[in-house]
Amino acid sequence: MLSSSDKNNKYFLGIDGGGSKCKAIITSTDNKILGTGISGPANPGHGYDQAVNSITESALLALKDAGLEDIALSEVVAGVGLAGVNLPVLFEQMSNWQHPFKRMFLATDLLIACLGAHQGADGAVMITGTGSCGFSNVDGHPFIVGAHGFPHGDKGSGAWFGLQAAKQVLLSLDGLIPLSLMNDKVLDLLSVTNGVELVEAIAGKPAAFYARMANLVFDCAEQGDELAASIVAEGSEYINNVARQLWRQNPPRMSMIGGLTPRLKPWLAQEIQDKLLEPLSPPEIGSILFAQQQLALV
Amino acid sequence: MLSSSDKNNKYFLGIDGGGSKCKAIITSTDNKILGTGISGPANPGHGYDQAVNSITESALLALKDAGLEDIALSEVVAGVGLAGVNLPVLFEQMSNWQHPFKRMFLATDLLIACLGAHQGADGAVMITGTGSCGFSNVDGHPFIVGAHGFPHGDKGSGAWFGLQAAKQVLLSLDGLIPLSLMNDKVLDLLSVTNGVELVEAIAGKPAAFYARMANLVFDCAEQGDELAASIVAEGSEYINNVARQLWRQNPPRMSMIGGLTPRLKPWLAQEIQDKLLEPLSPPEIGSILFAQQQLALV
Repeated sequence: MLSSSDKNNKYFLGIDGGGSKCKAIITSTDNKILGTGISGPANPGHGYDQAVNSITESALLALKDAGLEDIALSEVVAGVGLAGVNLPVLFEQMSNWQHPFKRMFLATDLLIACLGAHQGADGAVMITGTGSCGFSNVDGHPFIVGAHGFPHGDKGSGAWFGLQAAKQVLLSLDGLIPLSLMNDKVLDLLSVTNGVELVEAIAGKPAAFYARMANLVFDCAEQGDELAASIVAEGSEYINNVARQLWRQNPPRMSMIGGLTPRLKPWLAQEIQDKLLEPLSPPEIGSILFAQQQLALV
Repeated sequence: MLSSSDKNNKYFLGIDGGGSKCKAIITSTDNKILGTGISGPANPGHGYDQAVNSITESALLALKDAGLEDIALSEVVAGVGLAGVNLPVLFEQMSNWQHPFKRMFLATDLLIACLGAHQGADGAVMITGTGSCGFSNVDGHPFIVGAHGFPHGDKGSGAWFGLQAAKQVLLSLDGLIPLSLMNDKVLDLLSVTNGVELVEAIAGKPAAFYARMANLVFDCAEQGDELAASIVAEGSEYINNVARQLWRQNPPRMSMIGGLTPRLKPWLAQEIQDKLLEPLSPPEIGSILFAQQQLALV
């Protein structure tokens, strides 16, 4: 009878760990998904202990979902893609984690998203969700545009659109610019009635809170509101420029992913839209493809 | 012999509590300053315990500085001006403080700055330091423009100028906009050499950190850098509009105060500059004037 350690990389774990949740999948060697798990935030920049706990918890949930409770984490090869580890200090910290897996291969959330979108092949992705960034992976050369975080970066992201809306509504409530359709929508969404209450509601809030206000900017722009349309135009032009910068890296394919994509994509320049292709697989599959590529190298 | 409580409001304490420090002065009935004290942050929005500790500590330091160690806080009438208490929830929290003073009269940092600048008379102030706002006090009617906080408000403030600089440098390092004179100055100031290090240095930092980068924006604008000049123009135009909004309240006088004033004032519209008058007293004197006005009412 084979001991656990003799089983030759039979199970793979794919982790996609972001600022709000951590997704895990378990696959067998043929990359068929056997089970999935979701846990809490896993960006080590927002808390190392929380990140490693979320990764472990989502992995155990995925094993349970697959009916593989008898398989230990120490029998599983893990591809772990995480937000935040594009910063060297966080990459090093996570690399030093005394992880429970058979092997762990650590990558940025950007790389695993790109590998997933293009099924392990070269390509580029633009990610517009709570944050924003562009990434290409061509001939083993990773290239990043943006991914700077909030509020100093992440232009064209959900948080950025929401922050612009909040700023403009506050200026309007002070009488410094005209009213826009966004005023009532922002106040209604946050259940407040004036500027003082609005400030109380938004003061000190993280990016995910601001991202809740992104959809209403697009709603107002689509209803012809000039100020909302100018915000959408500014954010879209930034993403257009990110795409142009990525195309200069000569990726064979480019995809756009993230929660804001359905709203933002129709506002991009037509030639940018025309060249965007649907992602082939989600980022957590990209994590497994990454682990398998790394295993093949060693 | 008189007991302490029989001394008829002989000593007044004036507090100017902001987000980075708390200033206290002790005066006698003729408003002659007998002693001063400085302690830590006192904006209750950043921590209630810290705020009340800073107020008490600065008050004790001022008494000691005045050689009045034998006077208890319970013998002192306090005018307490605080950042943050323009938000009703924070005003209520501080009002409920079981304070150690004989009497405490609580006001916003805006009102005490305005009372100080105009020696207790009606007027208006524009405050441009780490944050920004406009305030007028005419016929007992307070009027606020801005004072919304960072990063959603406080346009034209030190933090706002610094954030614009950081944003533009990051866009430039990504190749999305041309280099500006600000690039080297921002990297040098923060002792970093590239975009990744810059993001590590600024991620999650508070307004006061960003405000450190404000001066270099003005330096670059004065050296002819177009991008820096456009940031200064945008911030200045906002402050111009704040001034115009305040003049509509018909204040007899208007002053501009705060650490960024010497840099920003020369960029304001000439007709705005021409009507600005020097503040007559600092905000902590305004706190004492406020306490004395309130005592006269009761």
